[in-house]
Amino acid sequence: MSSMDAATNAQTVREFVQTAFIEGRAQDAVDSFIGDRYVQHNPDVPDGIEGFKGIVAETKDKYPNFIFDTRKVIADDDHVCLHSYLSYDGNPPGISVMDIFRLEDGKIVEHWDVLQPIPEKQAHGNGMF
Amino acid sequence: MSSMDAATNAQTVREFVQTAFIEGRAQDAVDSFIGDRYVQHNPDVPDGIEGFKGIVAETKDKYPNFIFDTRKVIADDDHVCLHSYLSYDGNPPGISVMDIFRLEDGKIVEHWDVLQPIPEKQAHGNGMF
Repeated sequence: MSSMDAATNAQTVREFVQTAFIEGRAQDAVDSFIGDRYVQHNPDVPDGIEGFKGIVAETKDKYPNFIFDTRKVIADDDHVCLHSYLSYDGNPPGISVMDIFRLEDGKIVEHWDVLQPIPEKQAHGNGMF
Repeated sequence: MSSMDAATNAQTVREFVQTAFIEGRAQDAVDSFIGDRYVQHNPDVPDGIEGFKGIVAETKDKYPNFIFDTRKVIADDDHVCLHSYLSYDGNPPGISVMDIFRLEDGKIVEHWDVLQPIPEKQAHGNGMF
């Protein structure tokens, strides 16, 4: 796949995150950006498109000050990695998360992530981003 | 930067991980793969090349059964993301980790990571990989 496809996939993932996690419009995110399935690897979120819609609705309802601020995007063929700052209550210290999305024909079909609470005490002054 | 450079950087990072974390040869990893600095964003590891050498030596000494098994590599220009299974004692459940390395002129100069212990109870049967 050409690097233009990777760039297009990166833009798709950015718009998906904006629609789902920043604007809370789960069904619009499904209609516009998700393929015929959504294989979930986050161990705390139920599988599939319904599981995705559930977590978006729950986040929107419970955490009106939720922050999902993507700091880095790495796109390679059909995979897109994001490194983002999350905060459920909108306050520090928040969470460092890396997500990987796999796309087929320009639609998202699979998701992996790793989350780590940002510790207050750190071994240097560089931060996690 | 061309996609050939991304592929070369991906190979460099794979050889770096093999040399440092699988074979425990910190100085060889520094000499062959690290640039003039190593900006560390893992909050628990001291900054710089000396901090890197310290954590490699500590891992080799304390955890002879340490596993670092990379399952996915995503390379985009000067950034390379790895998704890997870690286990300090060589046993499950282990840790899911995503690393991002930044390279300059083919040498590694900066590192971010996010680690999450793999929970025994999961919301589906897909696993974290």
